[in-house]
Amino acid sequence: MRYHTGLFIPGPTNVPDQVRRAMNLPQEDMRAPDFPKFTLPLFADLKKVFKTETGQPFIYPSSGTGGWEAVLTNTLNPGDKVLISTFGQFSLLWADMCQRLGFETQVVDVEWGEGVPVEKFHDILAADKEHRIKAVLGTQNETATGVTSDVAGMRKALDAANHPALLYIDGVSSVASIDFRMDEWGVDAIVSGSQKGFMLPTGLAIICVSQKALEAHKTSRFPRCFFSFEDMTRTNKDGYFPYTPATVLLRGLRASLDLLFEEGLENVFTRHHHIAEGVRKAVDAWGMKLCAKEAKWHSDTVSAIIVPSNVDSAQVVRQAYNRYGVSFGVGLNKVAGKVFRIGHLGATNELMLLGAVAAAEMALVDCGADIEFGSGVAAAQAYYGSRRNVTAQAA
Amino acid sequence: MRYHTGLFIPGPTNVPDQVRRAMNLPQEDMRAPDFPKFTLPLFADLKKVFKTETGQPFIYPSSGTGGWEAVLTNTLNPGDKVLISTFGQFSLLWADMCQRLGFETQVVDVEWGEGVPVEKFHDILAADKEHRIKAVLGTQNETATGVTSDVAGMRKALDAANHPALLYIDGVSSVASIDFRMDEWGVDAIVSGSQKGFMLPTGLAIICVSQKALEAHKTSRFPRCFFSFEDMTRTNKDGYFPYTPATVLLRGLRASLDLLFEEGLENVFTRHHHIAEGVRKAVDAWGMKLCAKEAKWHSDTVSAIIVPSNVDSAQVVRQAYNRYGVSFGVGLNKVAGKVFRIGHLGATNELMLLGAVAAAEMALVDCGADIEFGSGVAAAQAYYGSRRNVTAQAA
Amino acid sequence: MRYHTGLFIPGPTNVPDQVRRAMNLPQEDMRAPDFPKFTLPLFADLKKVFKTETGQPFIYPSSGTGGWEAVLTNTLNPGDKVLISTFGQFSLLWADMCQRLGFETQVVDVEWGEGVPVEKFHDILAADKEHRIKAVLGTQNETATGVTSDVAGMRKALDAANHPALLYIDGVSSVASIDFRMDEWGVDAIVSGSQKGFMLPTGLAIICVSQKALEAHKTSRFPRCFFSFEDMTRTNKDGYFPYTPATVLLRGLRASLDLLFEEGLENVFTRHHHIAEGVRKAVDAWGMKLCAKEAKWHSDTVSAIIVPSNVDSAQVVRQAYNRYGVSFGVGLNKVAGKVFRIGHLGATNELMLLGAVAAAEMALVDCGADIEFGSGVAAAQAYYGSRRNVTAQAA
Amino acid sequence: MRYHTGLFIPGPTNVPDQVRRAMNLPQEDMRAPDFPKFTLPLFADLKKVFKTETGQPFIYPSSGTGGWEAVLTNTLNPGDKVLISTFGQFSLLWADMCQRLGFETQVVDVEWGEGVPVEKFHDILAADKEHRIKAVLGTQNETATGVTSDVAGMRKALDAANHPALLYIDGVSSVASIDFRMDEWGVDAIVSGSQKGFMLPTGLAIICVSQKALEAHKTSRFPRCFFSFEDMTRTNKDGYFPYTPATVLLRGLRASLDLLFEEGLENVFTRHHHIAEGVRKAVDAWGMKLCAKEAKWHSDTVSAIIVPSNVDSAQVVRQAYNRYGVSFGVGLNKVAGKVFRIGHLGATNELMLLGAVAAAEMALVDCGADIEFGSGVAAAQAYYGSRRNVTAQAA
Repeated sequence: MRYHTGLFIPGPTNVPDQVRRAMNLPQEDMRAPDFPKFTLPLFADLKKVFKTETGQPFIYPSSGTGGWEAVLTNTLNPGDKVLISTFGQFSLLWADMCQRLGFETQVVDVEWGEGVPVEKFHDILAADKEHRIKAVLGTQNETATGVTSDVAGMRKALDAANHPALLYIDGVSSVASIDFRMDEWGVDAIVSGSQKGFMLPTGLAIICVSQKALEAHKTSRFPRCFFSFEDMTRTNKDGYFPYTPATVLLRGLRASLDLLFEEGLENVFTRHHHIAEGVRKAVDAWGMKLCAKEAKWHSDTVSAIIVPSNVDSAQVVRQAYNRYGVSFGVGLNKVAGKVFRIGHLGATNELMLLGAVAAAEMALVDCGADIEFGSGVAAAQAYYGSRRNVTAQAA
Repeated sequence: MRYHTGLFIPGPTNVPDQVRRAMNLPQEDMRAPDFPKFTLPLFADLKKVFKTETGQPFIYPSSGTGGWEAVLTNTLNPGDKVLISTFGQFSLLWADMCQRLGFETQVVDVEWGEGVPVEKFHDILAADKEHRIKAVLGTQNETATGVTSDVAGMRKALDAANHPALLYIDGVSSVASIDFRMDEWGVDAIVSGSQKGFMLPTGLAIICVSQKALEAHKTSRFPRCFFSFEDMTRTNKDGYFPYTPATVLLRGLRASLDLLFEEGLENVFTRHHHIAEGVRKAVDAWGMKLCAKEAKWHSDTVSAIIVPSNVDSAQVVRQAYNRYGVSFGVGLNKVAGKVFRIGHLGATNELMLLGAVAAAEMALVDCGADIEFGSGVAAAQAYYGSRRNVTAQAA
Repeated sequence: MRYHTGLFIPGPTNVPDQVRRAMNLPQEDMRAPDFPKFTLPLFADLKKVFKTETGQPFIYPSSGTGGWEAVLTNTLNPGDKVLISTFGQFSLLWADMCQRLGFETQVVDVEWGEGVPVEKFHDILAADKEHRIKAVLGTQNETATGVTSDVAGMRKALDAANHPALLYIDGVSSVASIDFRMDEWGVDAIVSGSQKGFMLPTGLAIICVSQKALEAHKTSRFPRCFFSFEDMTRTNKDGYFPYTPATVLLRGLRASLDLLFEEGLENVFTRHHHIAEGVRKAVDAWGMKLCAKEAKWHSDTVSAIIVPSNVDSAQVVRQAYNRYGVSFGVGLNKVAGKVFRIGHLGATNELMLLGAVAAAEMALVDCGADIEFGSGVAAAQAYYGSRRNVTAQAA
Repeated sequence: MRYHTGLFIPGPTNVPDQVRRAMNLPQEDMRAPDFPKFTLPLFADLKKVFKTETGQPFIYPSSGTGGWEAVLTNTLNPGDKVLISTFGQFSLLWADMCQRLGFETQVVDVEWGEGVPVEKFHDILAADKEHRIKAVLGTQNETATGVTSDVAGMRKALDAANHPALLYIDGVSSVASIDFRMDEWGVDAIVSGSQKGFMLPTGLAIICVSQKALEAHKTSRFPRCFFSFEDMTRTNKDGYFPYTPATVLLRGLRASLDLLFEEGLENVFTRHHHIAEGVRKAVDAWGMKLCAKEAKWHSDTVSAIIVPSNVDSAQVVRQAYNRYGVSFGVGLNKVAGKVFRIGHLGATNELMLLGAVAAAEMALVDCGADIEFGSGVAAAQAYYGSRRNVTAQAA
């Protein structure tokens, strides 16, 4: 009898009970006179999460993939040139979308385990004297490899090259978990989803775009309707939507934002780092390596762990699920069979991750890994236990 | 204190407690090995709702609007000619989408209160000897006017004209409430959403397309990604999705389908007709008219009621909401201020509608209508009471 | 398919969604260090509902019946004399309990439809020169007949007779719906339950006793343990309980008190009167009578309606439930078959009661009553509609 | 931010999501004609859990304490002699209740860490030639010390002494987790509560009594009303209750029984033993001892762990709660400060307990225990991992 399944994939994440309760409600009239009293503050508060004062958020009943498409099709034109680097399944998919949507897509392939090659981007941008590149795309947190890129560095590359391209960031697995600063970093579009740092079920694409992107929107002739900014903007300004919104998720988002603000965004980031560092200590203790090649790429939301060569990581994930009732992330594409992933984002705490590490040890041993039971747990405990004042913890 | 708000808009509809319970659950791994055991029967059962054996359903985290776009952008090409008639806000919006997406859109304007002009369609199709029209679009139930069109008649018009155009139907406010027969009527795409007859919260576009439409898909070059059939088909066949699905709504859909099948689809339709007929008796008793001009257009899911000329229907809706805690639908576009709408679809019963009719009477009187309290209620009661064997009722 | 059952019994009442949400939570440690932060304010706030500053509340995982027993067995001694009048099933049951628990029980039988005979009580008390009567018991609201008694009058009778007996009130179906003033009226014990005015599921006996009752407790030698005040007092003072408390209901009680205070207790009482008056207008319009013989006995929480002599009220209730999906209360004991009851307490509004009245009309007609459809509804509407400023309503 | 608190007290236990969902429902009419269709099978299925064919179950809105009182006051008479042994807080409390209720209570004090002294009981019973002892009371699982007693042995002691006393068992923390066989062991009353093996919130006393106990009931003259068997029996036989039942918990009980039967009672017991054994391996690895003195007393539902003499167990529990967000049980009474308790009953699995053991290690180290991080976890893992075919686990 599977009474409880441990959920340690890098999204969907565990929905806090407060959010779950907030979503357990009857349907409501999305044209009611008092609906804007609920939605207008929601839009305003979303801006705080993105750390923007001038950006404009949009919420679609969709997914992160829809968020990517919304940004691209609302602000660019068919045939426009975009620059993107790929270093994992999700950056690959975004590049693939660019190609399928008909953009001239300059792809910089980077070894999986590294992030956005900021210097190389600088050189490409500096060489693009005619400013043919209309947008530079970056994945802040590559969920497939557990690599966090340097978004501030991307901005610096653009500025140093004195290049006017728009800067678009995929923050699906970073926003509300890892620091993101839209205004300070001059980001023109950030794409997020409900089911990661926002601690909600899947179902919303949550994006935010700059005034510069909205300016570009005016000359964008991409065929679009469902994702169109214009319909959203026209109705959102009064607190309504162009089609029936997913009110249950919006009510959940209200609860989620309240939790994030109650904890404090900076504390949320600290907690994620703290939790993640414990997992990394465990991996060290096992004598294994992360997919992320250097500490600077370490992701605080997901760890992609390279299993020993005699072990099949897909089998580890299956064993953990079937035998121990724990969901880990499989290795995708190039790293299939080679890595498994522990998600540690959203509503997590030390206790949960200690359990996850213990379960991972059992599944690894069952699948042939030569590690000692408890070794990773002990390393994580030593780390967690030495830092008793982390405000983000239980107390 | 507003302890309870009566929800009588034509969607979102009241979510049954069984469905609400089914959605109150932890998040889950959409890549788990046993996930297909849940999803594959779900796809199969959806086909029963659409009454198709050969069609292929698709479920998007989106809305009905997204469903329209999914169908159009996956099966047609930019510049293709489509035929559509408009007779209400939602058929207007679909036509508008066609134009915005770049189709050559032949719009047949029909007076609001009537439905698809089947004979006129026949004539147009018969005259289109070159078969330039690639798709014929029809709204089975126009939610703005409470008009149900004759989909079988549209098929007959196509057949009589010996025209190969695809037949696309908007069934957002009809599917699972009013009879729809995909295979028998030769429908090539049916678009629905979660928040109407499926009795779920908003958040899913639920569509189904024929093999003929899938054939057309092969030559469709529309830029698309989020809504692309190809990604869905590739992953759905094994029970998975190309991006994170809205699992909470899918679990709710399972519960909803179970309820629909337990009641029996034909009983569901009978119940909707029975409930609707009571509301229409009330309107008669008030001496008012429906927007739907003839009985053949009467919708069993929503009644759009024309208020007396001295009454502002928007004020009626506001009064009902603010003073009596009841949500009715406003008049949209051409009928703004002139009609208000009572939704009677989904998880409804006589008791609920008797309350709605009583509340409508009070709001109408408050806004200047010269009707007698209880007159509409009495007419509905007389109708409901005379038909004691309706299987769809409480017993 | 029974998607929704209208609940119009005089308890359990409809649980507001806010309360339902508050109870949908994981279990918790009732010995946790921060548990008192939750429970101590709960005890304090309960006193506001009872309008007492010096009383002490007790919460048992039990029912109203348990509350009666808790009061009697904690403050009296076997063989003690008590005075009680009976005028309905629930006052009968309380008198029966007194007898079964071994008290010398002086029962004043009153015709069903009247309430506590205050003058007669005065005479009895005045005649009891030796003060053998230790407690006077009264049912503030007799749920079986819809009769509200004069508790202030009982106090006056005691005072006028200069009698020291304790005054115990059954407020199960009145507290938090009808005004109750513990301190002002000198009540020594008030018994309530969770499932009526507190708008919670069944499962709690909620009582409050005066310092005088606590003084009597010191000399009470009744065998008791589960209901003992001493164990409760010892642990409650620090915010804990002598055995595992029903934390889910306590969390719900918190939400319920928040709602009551947000609306304002006086507004809650006004709303109940307003709703009840509409129902009474409907009964008048049907040409029927309430069980309550005079307006001064009219209960604002439940109306017991005498059906015409050719009608079986039990059949009316069955028909309403089986055919129309509405729960009404049956006639109990002496009035079985003769009355049916409409509960209108807790989280109710006009819309709900209009539906209930409409359903009652249908069930009555089906069972042979000669009334006109809509007649009761119209009378209620006229009453509700004429009083547009009732603050307790939706706005 | 405390997103999740690990609950490892020996009750209330973790409520499975299936049960939680089942309880999230509107209130219902407990006098509805179809209510017995729900309650009668519930009574029947409870008997399966108690392994009885001839016993009669009773469900009170109450707690385990209330269950004790119900049994005693319904089947004995004031002044009757009862035999009980005490070896922990809960057996102490039951003995205390006997004394407070006025029974002549023969208490056999046993060292905490041992269970019912079966041989001594035999001697006492054999010596009681006049059969003055009317009931023998035993606590199957002493929650304070983690000691499971030999109920079958108690029956043998009675039989060997040829003594007719009734045999009453407290199974609050054993029923539905540890094997219990009412008929085979000749138990005359078993007392349980909702919040342990039944995996429900607190709020129900669930008991079952033999025909012999019901026979004794006929001559019991204890003052009682709320807990009286006679009212319950009269109404339960038709599927109803003498006062408003806690329907929400009853609906939850239905879901809980379904889960227990789906897993299979024997598998449930095996799972509990398996989980418990891993915890005991961890305690061994820490070099600590259980309160239970011998393996035969080991409880499969709760482990009471003696901390090193330099450690305050109350501080361990506080630290675990305040710093790590985990609830353990404190030491009660004689073992206060000396033991802490890990509950491992109800809806548990290996993953949860591995996390609990890890958290316990951290709290122990923080409070001065000289143990190695991960040592207990490793021991539990080695045990769990070696037994891959435990059917009760995730697969």
